[in-house]
Amino acid sequence: MQDAQSIIDTAHEMADAAGRAILPFFRRAGLTADNKRPADFDPVTEADRAAERAMREVLARRRPQDGIFGEEYGTQKGSSGLTWILDPIDGTRAFICGAPSWGVLIGLSDGEQIRYGIIDQPYIGERFEGGLGLSRLVSAKGEHQLCVRTGVDLSRATLMTTFPEVGTAEEGAAFRRIAEQVRLTRYGLDCYAYALLALGQIDLVIEAGLQSYDIAGPMAVVQAAGGIVTNWQGETAINGGQVIAAATPELHRAALELLRG
Amino acid sequence: MQDAQSIIDTAHEMADAAGRAILPFFRRAGLTADNKRPADFDPVTEADRAAERAMREVLARRRPQDGIFGEEYGTQKGSSGLTWILDPIDGTRAFICGAPSWGVLIGLSDGEQIRYGIIDQPYIGERFEGGLGLSRLVSAKGEHQLCVRTGVDLSRATLMTTFPEVGTAEEGAAFRRIAEQVRLTRYGLDCYAYALLALGQIDLVIEAGLQSYDIAGPMAVVQAAGGIVTNWQGETAINGGQVIAAATPELHRAALELLRG
Repeated sequence: MQDAQSIIDTAHEMADAAGRAILPFFRRAGLTADNKRPADFDPVTEADRAAERAMREVLARRRPQDGIFGEEYGTQKGSSGLTWILDPIDGTRAFICGAPSWGVLIGLSDGEQIRYGIIDQPYIGERFEGGLGLSRLVSAKGEHQLCVRTGVDLSRATLMTTFPEVGTAEEGAAFRRIAEQVRLTRYGLDCYAYALLALGQIDLVIEAGLQSYDIAGPMAVVQAAGGIVTNWQGETAINGGQVIAAATPELHRAALELLRG
Repeated sequence: MQDAQSIIDTAHEMADAAGRAILPFFRRAGLTADNKRPADFDPVTEADRAAERAMREVLARRRPQDGIFGEEYGTQKGSSGLTWILDPIDGTRAFICGAPSWGVLIGLSDGEQIRYGIIDQPYIGERFEGGLGLSRLVSAKGEHQLCVRTGVDLSRATLMTTFPEVGTAEEGAAFRRIAEQVRLTRYGLDCYAYALLALGQIDLVIEAGLQSYDIAGPMAVVQAAGGIVTNWQGETAINGGQVIAAATPELHRAALELLRG
């Protein structure tokens, strides 16, 4: 990609700006959570909105030709063919509990594929990055190459998802067919689960009910680390919905078969 | 307590030593987990054992008169009436997934009560400490007073536990009676959930099947922050088993009633 360095620099500046906007709110006493969808409690805090505004300000200054699709402020058309897909705080439930497993998600789409993305956890100080030739974790401890692990079959795999119920009753049942086969299933980590997959620490992430901004950034990070991300039909995951991320083609195939029932 | 400063200094040196022993193993490729209890997969790594040895070495040098009860190396009698209760890595499942929600747990018992304790998360760099006049989080960001939050009733409370199944079928049913009443239930954080309670970020932690070394350190931290820790009968939690930690007496009472059914 021609302007890869501009894209990478812009994304890091966006992640920095989002972290600065969010951290003053994290663990602040009396933080109130609005309720976008009263039926199932989806808290959105002022931190979410402040972080997306901060990222949009960076884009307006550095790359006004690009489009934007963000969780909080919707779509802004561009002329470059590139669209930034933003989730200022993925894991707002973790956020309002004070747990540092939420993340700032940034993905860049060329209309067909996700070319680049970041999962940023500014409280811990970890930035997971993938695409445009990069696949790395950058932290105060230095730079660490991201790479999925191989050679783990389903019976020895570690599986993660965010909510134990996963989605609908049918989606939950499909998930449990895999949970029964793997060695270890863990819950509650939101985007951080995809970062652990890219780090080679776990083998599968399976979720349902995602939005495209929940998966764009993680998809870039996992794919650059050698993993596979699709929907439960094996097609592109970029529209969200039912998503599976696997460390290897073998695990991906085995899990898709069980998901189909 | 007469030698409070010696106790506090020793505990910090133990936590430092444990962190140094553990971190080289965290997220290391090819880390193997032994299987102490083949039936339900309880991985114990070399990191666990190295960390407990490191803590015992500090005690042998600084406070040989105290007793020790540790997860990995059992009981060593002392003459002072004080016993250190050690869990070198609480949350080994999180550990082997690369998730930084595990902790080094240190508690000090005088035979009747837990007088002091630490929950240490060396990867993030957070040390939660309570007892002997202290109640604080120490991190690279500085020192932060720990204090539970008040004024949250059960219907607006946040509840945490480690495993969605909680324990036996009966224990799980009792837990779900409370989960149905609260605003938000989250899973998977092990000892870190008690730290979030002491930070005033969540309101209840309810678990079953704990060992005394799982709860001694967290109990000191939560109690020093103003919270309540008992078993499900409202008696001392120091023997482990079914444990409830609550931010306020009102929440504790309401939850105990629902646990009794």
